[in-house]
Amino acid sequence: MDSMIDLTGELLIGARRQDGGQKRFQAINPATGKAIEPFFSGAGAAEIDQACALAAQAFAAYRATSSATRAKFLEAIAARIEEIGDALIARAVLETGLPKARIEGERARTVGQLRLFAGVVREGGWMGLRVDPALPDRKPLPRPDLRLRKIPLGPVAVFGASNFPLAFSVAGGDTASALAAGCPVVVKAHPAHPGTCELVGRAIAAAVAESGLPEGVFSLLSGIGNELGAALVSDPRIKAVGFTGSRAGGLALAALAAKRAEPIPVYAEMSSINPVLLMPAALAARGEKLGESFVASLTLGAGQFCTNPGLVIAARGPGFDAFMQKASEALAAAPASTMLHPGIFKAYQAGVERLASHAKLVGRGRKADGPNQCQSALFVTDAQDFIADETLSGEVFGASGLVVGCADLQEMEAVITSLEGQLTITLQMDAADNAAATALLPLLEQKAGRILANGWPTGVEVSHAMVHGGPFPSTSDSRSTSVGTLAIERFLRPVCYQNFPDAVLPDELREQKIGQSWRRVDGEMRAPG
Amino acid sequence: MDSMIDLTGELLIGARRQDGGQKRFQAINPATGKAIEPFFSGAGAAEIDQACALAAQAFAAYRATSSATRAKFLEAIAARIEEIGDALIARAVLETGLPKARIEGERARTVGQLRLFAGVVREGGWMGLRVDPALPDRKPLPRPDLRLRKIPLGPVAVFGASNFPLAFSVAGGDTASALAAGCPVVVKAHPAHPGTCELVGRAIAAAVAESGLPEGVFSLLSGIGNELGAALVSDPRIKAVGFTGSRAGGLALAALAAKRAEPIPVYAEMSSINPVLLMPAALAARGEKLGESFVASLTLGAGQFCTNPGLVIAARGPGFDAFMQKASEALAAAPASTMLHPGIFKAYQAGVERLASHAKLVGRGRKADGPNQCQSALFVTDAQDFIADETLSGEVFGASGLVVGCADLQEMEAVITSLEGQLTITLQMDAADNAAATALLPLLEQKAGRILANGWPTGVEVSHAMVHGGPFPSTSDSRSTSVGTLAIERFLRPVCYQNFPDAVLPDELREQKIGQSWRRVDGEMRAPG
Repeated sequence: MDSMIDLTGELLIGARRQDGGQKRFQAINPATGKAIEPFFSGAGAAEIDQACALAAQAFAAYRATSSATRAKFLEAIAARIEEIGDALIARAVLETGLPKARIEGERARTVGQLRLFAGVVREGGWMGLRVDPALPDRKPLPRPDLRLRKIPLGPVAVFGASNFPLAFSVAGGDTASALAAGCPVVVKAHPAHPGTCELVGRAIAAAVAESGLPEGVFSLLSGIGNELGAALVSDPRIKAVGFTGSRAGGLALAALAAKRAEPIPVYAEMSSINPVLLMPAALAARGEKLGESFVASLTLGAGQFCTNPGLVIAARGPGFDAFMQKASEALAAAPASTMLHPGIFKAYQAGVERLASHAKLVGRGRKADGPNQCQSALFVTDAQDFIADETLSGEVFGASGLVVGCADLQEMEAVITSLEGQLTITLQMDAADNAAATALLPLLEQKAGRILANGWPTGVEVSHAMVHGGPFPSTSDSRSTSVGTLAIERFLRPVCYQNFPDAVLPDELREQKIGQSWRRVDGEMRAPG
Repeated sequence: MDSMIDLTGELLIGARRQDGGQKRFQAINPATGKAIEPFFSGAGAAEIDQACALAAQAFAAYRATSSATRAKFLEAIAARIEEIGDALIARAVLETGLPKARIEGERARTVGQLRLFAGVVREGGWMGLRVDPALPDRKPLPRPDLRLRKIPLGPVAVFGASNFPLAFSVAGGDTASALAAGCPVVVKAHPAHPGTCELVGRAIAAAVAESGLPEGVFSLLSGIGNELGAALVSDPRIKAVGFTGSRAGGLALAALAAKRAEPIPVYAEMSSINPVLLMPAALAARGEKLGESFVASLTLGAGQFCTNPGLVIAARGPGFDAFMQKASEALAAAPASTMLHPGIFKAYQAGVERLASHAKLVGRGRKADGPNQCQSALFVTDAQDFIADETLSGEVFGASGLVVGCADLQEMEAVITSLEGQLTITLQMDAADNAAATALLPLLEQKAGRILANGWPTGVEVSHAMVHGGPFPSTSDSRSTSVGTLAIERFLRPVCYQNFPDAVLPDELREQKIGQSWRRVDGEMRAPG
């Protein structure tokens, strides 16, 4: 395979490929359990320092680039990723055990995401321009001329996720939104797919060079163990962190960031069990169908989605029985599938065992016929037990679901009230459920960043109105999203310019230029032109 | 005085006036050093619990109010504050030692601020509406209908500042923006002006009742010591914190908030010395005038502003000498003036003594002729000493200034580079300084939230383009402002509704209503109507 010939296992410190000198490691093919060539280099203190120093040096020039330059750069990254061709797909499949079609879809999403942010940069609304013109004759005091724009925070550390080796990894949503905002990025490669990371990292580095940008706009560090990530988050030149992964990992990084001499924001997308409420009328009308489609969503991609529906809440009755019956059948027929890496597989097994000692097992999917395969699992419990036992609301990453049987809607509400923050909550509902859904909505809004009607939460659209975020512990910062164009706001802060001579103002705030952008004038929104 | 007859010293727990049972305390008239009647009640655990419980109960109903209701409520608060009349002014003067005209101006600012936020609520842009309409025929997958709005975070704890007994206290910017966002507010009264707090608190409680809102929308707790504030920030029903005060206080609250089972955002406006750069041409042309106007800004209100210009950075030469000469003269003539309370006066004296042992004293203002009076102080040092000695860059709250004499522009830049984050940086500049100012601007933007040309940083306009915020430690969250309409965004988070039946959608997102608001459709901004 071409990609393997090509891989060097080196770090990317700006434009330089370099051996890190720390403990070397290999990816594991989860489908075989065997190590894959080549060895990858681990970054040490010197490499972290170099990457951060380059990022800090690059920041001023990078943020000063025009919207057009930055948009073209994002598009160049997309094109370079596409140019890697099948080698990227093959390597990602090898390192993750994910099917080829899924990886191809993810590549389309990744390059689409970069191009979407190019559009956002060009549109310019992200600058948040505001002008309050001078009022020299105002009494008792004149008002100065005030102009506001948003500027980038500075170099951002991005921690790639294991479960989206392209869309949430080296050139994923965090990187795309940080680069769009004008922030240089230092990526810590996920050690489960280092070859995929290297290929994508080289595509970005090539785009940096081709766009005439300073090399420090992007670096890629890799390594195993927690020291690399901790050192990166603690580096004073890093000004924000994007992370997708475990609750323990996210909390550890947030704690480190808070302890810095200068604390910085951490956007960690961590833990969610994505409750699905089967509303009474929908459950009565289509319990069987819901059972079937629930299992399809639960087992999709071995359940390895942040938005996997791990919890179903419903009132007992004939519809509930039909749901359970059909879900059991569908689950029994669900093939085992390879998980992303041995660590995730082990954690999944431990999670299922833990649930088995706290809830009743409904059934398991088909048995594994290879290493690291997720055998789906479904459990059932009662509302009172669920509320009393916090083990039952912990995330089990993978295709493990828990159904909470309730007496009625009121008990369903009590179950929801007991929950921590979530990325999503889904309502399976018919028109006759509208009133009950409306009554529940204020509670649901307090618990989740996205609320769905009659869909399944897996599948996160990359668009303008998406929120992939939510109250703690689904994320460390509910005021933001890590998917969709609103994600750019995570890496910006406002600056006000008071009574500035026009010639010294940033370009977009100058009298001759500001009319070309969306802006608020005395608080009133004005269109360009 | 009417206000004193009227004051009861009780807490306001929703609609109820109540004795807190904890240690009672009195305000001190800083101009006489004497205690003022009556005694004020200290809140204990039970009162904190009741206030937070009422706030949590009120949240759902309060956030569901229409924009019109909420706007009218903010206007009702303003009207009720005005209705208190001279009693409020007299009590605030008595408790703070600030001149009557200043307090009257601050009242105008406070009610203006509430009315400004009423306008923001009516305008509706704060909801951040977005729609990505369904694309049922899209390949390979259809796109669901996605709609986004921002919703309030939940009950907010507000810590009033000592230095703005109206504009940054009970009904100040934090309260106004949180109430505008739809968040109930629990205020911890500043113990230095408890009578002013009670009067304003009762005005808000009256407005709550008159607006037909649930009583828990507002509570006012008071007390001395740190336990009350710590308990409030640690209460699980509190979802965000607004604070203006000392660096130590802000950091303590931020640490508590980060340690909670559910961490919450803390918006602490803390510490800033507000550097003023005297650019070469301006200094050469008008060194004397700058010296005079600098001292006027430094000594305004005994220097008790977050944006007091505590640091001047300039290159030595004839202009510098003229500046120093005139500043010394102006300072010598500056009358001593009463500080807000004995604690601030003591801290000021200690700060001046500390500076005196690290920098050269240029001169002092006129001597005090009463208790707690700030005798202004001016120091000078060299760039190298300033950079090497971090004592010199610590904030001394009050009319104490330090001038850093530099060899040239390059050394001025080195001084700026050595600084922590600031609320403001000011450039005194002439047209001939434009090129140098333009070159410095990227650095200044990294160091401050507001950059002024040819003004003085005291005086913070309450408007749409204002930023009263900045990098750490000027605030704990540089992504926000605590003055101006953008402050509302601190208390909001986005929620996405996917494929919702129109009847169940929040009102403003419904098909018949959404066209009446500013919104992005597929990312494109659209005007109402």
